[in-house]
Amino acid sequence: MPKTQANTDACAAPANQLETKARAWSALFSEPMSDLVKRYTASVFFDQRLWRADIAGSLAHAEMLAAQGLISEQDHASIGRGLAQIASEIESGAFAWKLDLEDLHLNIEARLTQLVGDAGKRLHTGRSRNDQVATDLRLWLRGEIDLIVGLLGELQRALLDLAEQNAEVILPGFTHLQVAQPVSFGHHLLAYVEMFARDAERMQEVRRRVNMLPLGSAALAGTSYPLDRERVARTLGMVDASGLPALCRNSLDAVSDRDFAIEFSAAASLCMVHVSRFSEELVLWMSQNFGFIRIADRFTTGSSIMPQKKNPDVPELARGKTGRVFGHLVGLLTLMKGQPLAYNKDNQEDKEPLFDTVDTLKDTLRIFAEMVGGETDPASGRKEGAITVNAAAMEQAARKGYATATDLADYLVRKGLPFRDAHETVAHAVQAAVAHACDLSELPLSVLQGFHPQIEKDVYEVLSLRGSLAARNTPGGTAPAQVRAQLAHHRARLAQ
Amino acid sequence: MPKTQANTDACAAPANQLETKARAWSALFSEPMSDLVKRYTASVFFDQRLWRADIAGSLAHAEMLAAQGLISEQDHASIGRGLAQIASEIESGAFAWKLDLEDLHLNIEARLTQLVGDAGKRLHTGRSRNDQVATDLRLWLRGEIDLIVGLLGELQRALLDLAEQNAEVILPGFTHLQVAQPVSFGHHLLAYVEMFARDAERMQEVRRRVNMLPLGSAALAGTSYPLDRERVARTLGMVDASGLPALCRNSLDAVSDRDFAIEFSAAASLCMVHVSRFSEELVLWMSQNFGFIRIADRFTTGSSIMPQKKNPDVPELARGKTGRVFGHLVGLLTLMKGQPLAYNKDNQEDKEPLFDTVDTLKDTLRIFAEMVGGETDPASGRKEGAITVNAAAMEQAARKGYATATDLADYLVRKGLPFRDAHETVAHAVQAAVAHACDLSELPLSVLQGFHPQIEKDVYEVLSLRGSLAARNTPGGTAPAQVRAQLAHHRARLAQ
Amino acid sequence: MPKTQANTDACAAPANQLETKARAWSALFSEPMSDLVKRYTASVFFDQRLWRADIAGSLAHAEMLAAQGLISEQDHASIGRGLAQIASEIESGAFAWKLDLEDLHLNIEARLTQLVGDAGKRLHTGRSRNDQVATDLRLWLRGEIDLIVGLLGELQRALLDLAEQNAEVILPGFTHLQVAQPVSFGHHLLAYVEMFARDAERMQEVRRRVNMLPLGSAALAGTSYPLDRERVARTLGMVDASGLPALCRNSLDAVSDRDFAIEFSAAASLCMVHVSRFSEELVLWMSQNFGFIRIADRFTTGSSIMPQKKNPDVPELARGKTGRVFGHLVGLLTLMKGQPLAYNKDNQEDKEPLFDTVDTLKDTLRIFAEMVGGETDPASGRKEGAITVNAAAMEQAARKGYATATDLADYLVRKGLPFRDAHETVAHAVQAAVAHACDLSELPLSVLQGFHPQIEKDVYEVLSLRGSLAARNTPGGTAPAQVRAQLAHHRARLAQ
Amino acid sequence: MPKTQANTDACAAPANQLETKARAWSALFSEPMSDLVKRYTASVFFDQRLWRADIAGSLAHAEMLAAQGLISEQDHASIGRGLAQIASEIESGAFAWKLDLEDLHLNIEARLTQLVGDAGKRLHTGRSRNDQVATDLRLWLRGEIDLIVGLLGELQRALLDLAEQNAEVILPGFTHLQVAQPVSFGHHLLAYVEMFARDAERMQEVRRRVNMLPLGSAALAGTSYPLDRERVARTLGMVDASGLPALCRNSLDAVSDRDFAIEFSAAASLCMVHVSRFSEELVLWMSQNFGFIRIADRFTTGSSIMPQKKNPDVPELARGKTGRVFGHLVGLLTLMKGQPLAYNKDNQEDKEPLFDTVDTLKDTLRIFAEMVGGETDPASGRKEGAITVNAAAMEQAARKGYATATDLADYLVRKGLPFRDAHETVAHAVQAAVAHACDLSELPLSVLQGFHPQIEKDVYEVLSLRGSLAARNTPGGTAPAQVRAQLAHHRARLAQ
Repeated sequence: MPKTQANTDACAAPANQLETKARAWSALFSEPMSDLVKRYTASVFFDQRLWRADIAGSLAHAEMLAAQGLISEQDHASIGRGLAQIASEIESGAFAWKLDLEDLHLNIEARLTQLVGDAGKRLHTGRSRNDQVATDLRLWLRGEIDLIVGLLGELQRALLDLAEQNAEVILPGFTHLQVAQPVSFGHHLLAYVEMFARDAERMQEVRRRVNMLPLGSAALAGTSYPLDRERVARTLGMVDASGLPALCRNSLDAVSDRDFAIEFSAAASLCMVHVSRFSEELVLWMSQNFGFIRIADRFTTGSSIMPQKKNPDVPELARGKTGRVFGHLVGLLTLMKGQPLAYNKDNQEDKEPLFDTVDTLKDTLRIFAEMVGGETDPASGRKEGAITVNAAAMEQAARKGYATATDLADYLVRKGLPFRDAHETVAHAVQAAVAHACDLSELPLSVLQGFHPQIEKDVYEVLSLRGSLAARNTPGGTAPAQVRAQLAHHRARLAQ
Repeated sequence: MPKTQANTDACAAPANQLETKARAWSALFSEPMSDLVKRYTASVFFDQRLWRADIAGSLAHAEMLAAQGLISEQDHASIGRGLAQIASEIESGAFAWKLDLEDLHLNIEARLTQLVGDAGKRLHTGRSRNDQVATDLRLWLRGEIDLIVGLLGELQRALLDLAEQNAEVILPGFTHLQVAQPVSFGHHLLAYVEMFARDAERMQEVRRRVNMLPLGSAALAGTSYPLDRERVARTLGMVDASGLPALCRNSLDAVSDRDFAIEFSAAASLCMVHVSRFSEELVLWMSQNFGFIRIADRFTTGSSIMPQKKNPDVPELARGKTGRVFGHLVGLLTLMKGQPLAYNKDNQEDKEPLFDTVDTLKDTLRIFAEMVGGETDPASGRKEGAITVNAAAMEQAARKGYATATDLADYLVRKGLPFRDAHETVAHAVQAAVAHACDLSELPLSVLQGFHPQIEKDVYEVLSLRGSLAARNTPGGTAPAQVRAQLAHHRARLAQ
Repeated sequence: MPKTQANTDACAAPANQLETKARAWSALFSEPMSDLVKRYTASVFFDQRLWRADIAGSLAHAEMLAAQGLISEQDHASIGRGLAQIASEIESGAFAWKLDLEDLHLNIEARLTQLVGDAGKRLHTGRSRNDQVATDLRLWLRGEIDLIVGLLGELQRALLDLAEQNAEVILPGFTHLQVAQPVSFGHHLLAYVEMFARDAERMQEVRRRVNMLPLGSAALAGTSYPLDRERVARTLGMVDASGLPALCRNSLDAVSDRDFAIEFSAAASLCMVHVSRFSEELVLWMSQNFGFIRIADRFTTGSSIMPQKKNPDVPELARGKTGRVFGHLVGLLTLMKGQPLAYNKDNQEDKEPLFDTVDTLKDTLRIFAEMVGGETDPASGRKEGAITVNAAAMEQAARKGYATATDLADYLVRKGLPFRDAHETVAHAVQAAVAHACDLSELPLSVLQGFHPQIEKDVYEVLSLRGSLAARNTPGGTAPAQVRAQLAHHRARLAQ
Repeated sequence: MPKTQANTDACAAPANQLETKARAWSALFSEPMSDLVKRYTASVFFDQRLWRADIAGSLAHAEMLAAQGLISEQDHASIGRGLAQIASEIESGAFAWKLDLEDLHLNIEARLTQLVGDAGKRLHTGRSRNDQVATDLRLWLRGEIDLIVGLLGELQRALLDLAEQNAEVILPGFTHLQVAQPVSFGHHLLAYVEMFARDAERMQEVRRRVNMLPLGSAALAGTSYPLDRERVARTLGMVDASGLPALCRNSLDAVSDRDFAIEFSAAASLCMVHVSRFSEELVLWMSQNFGFIRIADRFTTGSSIMPQKKNPDVPELARGKTGRVFGHLVGLLTLMKGQPLAYNKDNQEDKEPLFDTVDTLKDTLRIFAEMVGGETDPASGRKEGAITVNAAAMEQAARKGYATATDLADYLVRKGLPFRDAHETVAHAVQAAVAHACDLSELPLSVLQGFHPQIEKDVYEVLSLRGSLAARNTPGGTAPAQVRAQLAHHRARLAQ
């Protein structure tokens, strides 16, 4: 804090005890805190980001205090004016955050009192930092969830576009990273749409429990002032599906509950699981031994020593960041385990992991949406820089590994064999093909008939990649017709 | 496996390759697996518990195969008969589980084929173990979630009963484990009702995503048989809120998705957080320095060396088991991170943590419901053995720590002081009371008036514990009237 | 417990209160525990495996009690005889474990008293279950660590053998899964030897802290009997590097310390990280798009639906089991967090995660040693079934991705260019090669000279894979000479 | 980057391609990266803190390059001069870190080239960022471990001082938070000395594995330049216990190994477990129902609403920060799981968790050392502000809960009863005392004799708290004589 600022403060508000003492608390404290302890216990360096929520909450609280006659209309107006000025100071960077005032809340309250005098001192009527910070955190997280749901939508749309273009492109479907059966590359991408759709659904469910009002719970026991909590809830948009005010129903729970932070982190962890799975595949597909896709250069980097390298940095980093998000979830669970009621200072540790989880998730989703779908070129209006697909390499890879062996078994079942016997028969045919170093479809009909006499010429259609693909035409299957049905379903869902 | 059984097997089904080979797979395998590898890769020791779900899924699959004309009605009947016998064998303990057959599914299929011949070999038509195990796990977990939601209801009811009896009992409300303000012990218990109500709500949301049908996805790509997946879904009760069949929409996702196991574990972890917080308080309250409550002897144990001990074993163990459930969540997240599509063998590791999480949660909730609320005595029909409350000890503890200091500040606000100034004034009064080693309510009026001239005789009502309690009469507050309103709300909710 | 057994017990030892009561504790308990609570709080189902350590500890304790004159030589002899019989009963499966006796310790003590009367009741003199269980766990874990260190040695030897055979085999070295530079496959395997060597070193360090004696700390405060703790420590082999008895120095710490379990789990987690990295590579290398290696059939499985599949089950499962071990570490850390001194019942939850971690690690290491190195054929005395290497596929893959671009940069540096400029020059050359769809070594000299005039004919040696390999001939580099130096180092180390 | 800066750059070093391009890599990249991607992939914001290690590593590398004749002495001198200037710029805050240059290493190299031209471009000869960053991280962490070991020593000394003052103060020893036996408060504090001593030991072991040189491994395969790695190791102090250079022995392992970060985090997690246990006790002891101790005001805070509060913020926050450190460990384990060799970009995520773990641990240990032991008053030279002990409250609490019941049992054993029978007898005596609402020591001799005829008048000495304490006089026991022996042991150890 620059000296001149301190002088100004001292001049402006000699009676503002939040400023004239080393600690805001009360006359009880006889010794100054060392700087390290201040830094260790203060949160103002990271809780600043809640300022919009804090001011919104204070405005709603003041409006209600005035409506209930607990403060005068004049005080209400002063508070409104003061908070508006503070908002503008923060936005412009002019606000002087002070470590001595420990957190966001006291910084704003102190400045408010400096600006509007006693009205500022009345704002905290019927309120404690315990219910205030819980309200701030919920308001802020609600907004972030809305952004995340939007980004999940963008990523899904990018995947849908790419899936649509590649509905007929054949990819070797793997299980155990061994070639299993041919699948449509579009179908493969739609598996990720399912995952990100579930993520969005979970986020919406978390949002409902986030969007409830703790304010009015005071320190832990409620308050003796006749507050109108429902009015505050409506002002802040904390309403349920029926439009009724959504209040935290028990004051002890309201000030100490951090379930919403944990369940958000769990939902974020699952979303990062999906990102990590997709990243793993992108890294594989870009490896020279696959060569299935390329991503735009700006999502890769080179090497300081090897001049030829283009490394898939973004997918790798995203995969790595999964650990970070898991870690924050573990941190929050550990934090809350075994805490007696009600608020304990441990809870201050809820913010940094939550903030970092939100930042990591938003950045990752935004980058992935663009990496998958490209960026709109302002000149042409067309998307550019999306994932580029090497369909030939994919199809060639699908020719390895006897991907249509199951189709041959199914063929034999249609000829009357029990499935288990057909499976066994085909295993022998594969053994022969391995011995001849050729695909099943390259074995002469006579050889195939050696395994089962009912095999006829039409078997070669069954043994083709496209035949195999088209045959899987039940709901959820990889036949292009089913892929298009899935696409239509998701387009309609996202259009709602 | 006893010898006679093996002989019987050999006699009964010479053509059943699931039995006559070391491995069920196919003719490709030339060497026997060592016992350790068998044990390492087999799941039959733990996946046995899915047997009811496996048979239910097979019955539904067979019924549909017959309806679609994919197997004959005669085969369908044979399969039904065989599976009924297998169910009865498993239930009676007569079923001979074989490690060589690796898992539940192959054990049942092999026995079925032994019992009903080729019909058994046809059951696997259009099905893979990949979609089969996903279906089994979902069916099983759906049932367990229903049990857990029921147990959460029982625990909430036990807490409600205890809260009702203690609505007027005064407990020192703590923040930072420092005496903060007096609260109703009933109000305190209702904070836990809120937590367990949220747990139940989350479980219901997880259930919706659990209750979807993967079957019909086959290995990863769907199947070439004209299956009627919606029919199977209806048979298995996998329907959405509107009663429409709930299908996993993408075959690659269907066989590899384990989101539902992870989100269940996250919900269970949060529930255990709540259990651990309550346990921490029970342990504190039973400590001699509190002496607030007693729990029935059967939830405690003694010491092998110290003859006087009665230790709160059950709450301590439950607190300890929180770590176990967190650990399983971490294990499952780690498992899925970075897995490429579709099914990988890693996924077999999903079961043990999930099973142990379910067992731990069910046992814990059942024991806590009885420990809180007692057990119904069949003779008297009355609950006995519930938590016993020492109201006098609680109230005495609330007299420490100047629990009504905030009430004095509020009193001054009503006299016109801004809250922040009132807070500061009271801090000086507390300092004086500390110096005199007495409570605020024991300071003479003249001394109190020294801090502020407007303090009058009515202040002593404000400084009483009961006065403080009754004053917190806004929604969510600790006034007995509010506690009763909360009780009514929860009774109505649980009666639905 | 069957009725007849109970009757027998009652007859045999009417004065043995460990048997004639529902609970062993004391006369304080008035009500029987329900079965669920018994099961919830009992540990006898899983702590049985500590029986050898428990008996060893009791023998050492009894020997010392006699030497100190705290029990008679006759009692000592009786205890020795009784424990010998119990050991033989447990080993043969004849021992009747009783849930009512809660844990291993009381089961053995009760049976001992049944067998030898009052002498059995004297064994617990100066001992509590708190220091007893801590001693048991440490003795048991010490033995397991020794086994694990042995298995780590076997795995390293198997890797060394394979590395030696493949010192000259060229593998594409990857960074970011992009081809980077050619490396010796032997060199690559030796990276894992480094990892497992570090694991063994860590295990030895953990062992030192495991191998300390808590016995003599009694419940928490020490004991009033003149025990000779150093004698017990010597008997149990709990000595430090200088051969001096290693005692836990503080009784409160001794009974509540579980650091050793956590640090073992952390070391195990790191070991599983290494296993998971190796598994990931094995899975990749076996994928058809790589085709670098094969593992013996018995470490793979097939598919129930796809007849052609051979899936690398063991590496996949091991990769999956990594999550399990991480989870146990998290469980144990969570368990101990925030526990006040001294022993709390939470600690009973230390065993299952620790046991499962030990089992998982031992099984995994044993299987990997054999999977890598094969099994000795008793007939030939030769190892069979080791990893099979497709050197041609590896070398072919190394030809992709301009793996020798760095060599060209180094060549230019030798011609006088600053490294950073050489790096830039080669980037242009790679661009040209990409444009011509050829390798750097396939660009005509004239084209190469276009990038830098000092490039001469000898550049083609530099651009060859073998030339690149041989050039990296500083300590730790991939030149075969360095690989052999590493091999010699590790052989010597393991021979110690 | 402001425009003028860019212009200056362009003027000063037209040939420095690290500056004249959007990305440093090479001519391969055709498009600029968006700002988000830059921020997502850059590490310069957090890896700046490694600058001293980076410069030290570069100086050692340059010195060796010159000694080996790989660069000229003139270049060496230029590099030395340039790096000295850069160090001074960074220290003074004048250094212009550029996001476009991605990380610390390229920022410094680019500036160096700007300052000293081609010599700067030669510094990277035989080096890659992969081995460079691994070296930096190890050098930095080595220094931090030394600081942490020092802080652990300070905390132990503070605990020893407090223990010494309180060797004879009686505290109720708890198990299960139930009064168990009286213990010396000094003895109790020494349990934490044991824990922190183990932490320091573990840190030293980790340090040995940290202090090894990766440099010379280049990107992944070693280098073709004749580097003298041992010379670099000696310059950087990377030597083993015998003073021999400690090299990472395998280049692939050297660049991808992050074991040291994980094992440091595991050691830090254990240390935080100990901090959390101590914090839990401090919070309990300060609660009004205990009132055992006070900590200095500067480690507490007040409430914004409750004027009377003094909350133990520092212990609570430290307990909360345990979660954060556990979380980072989980993040790092997750990060490394399943990564194929060699370096992948995921690894960039190793730094932030490691940095935050180090910061959290150092701050916490420093604050705890002062909170326990106080701060030296420069005037008096005496420590002030240490923990204040209320010995009377402790001793009074020890009188609850029949803390000497075990002593009575031991007394009966000395009279000839087997321990198990004595235990049972005392249980009945405790029952009687409970019924009379008195302590065992308050029961008349005749009543005591009713439980066993051999009880005589000397029993009352045995039943006293001090008698009980003094009786536990075997090594590790709580008798003041033993406490002093422990103190002497630790003083000697720390003086080494």
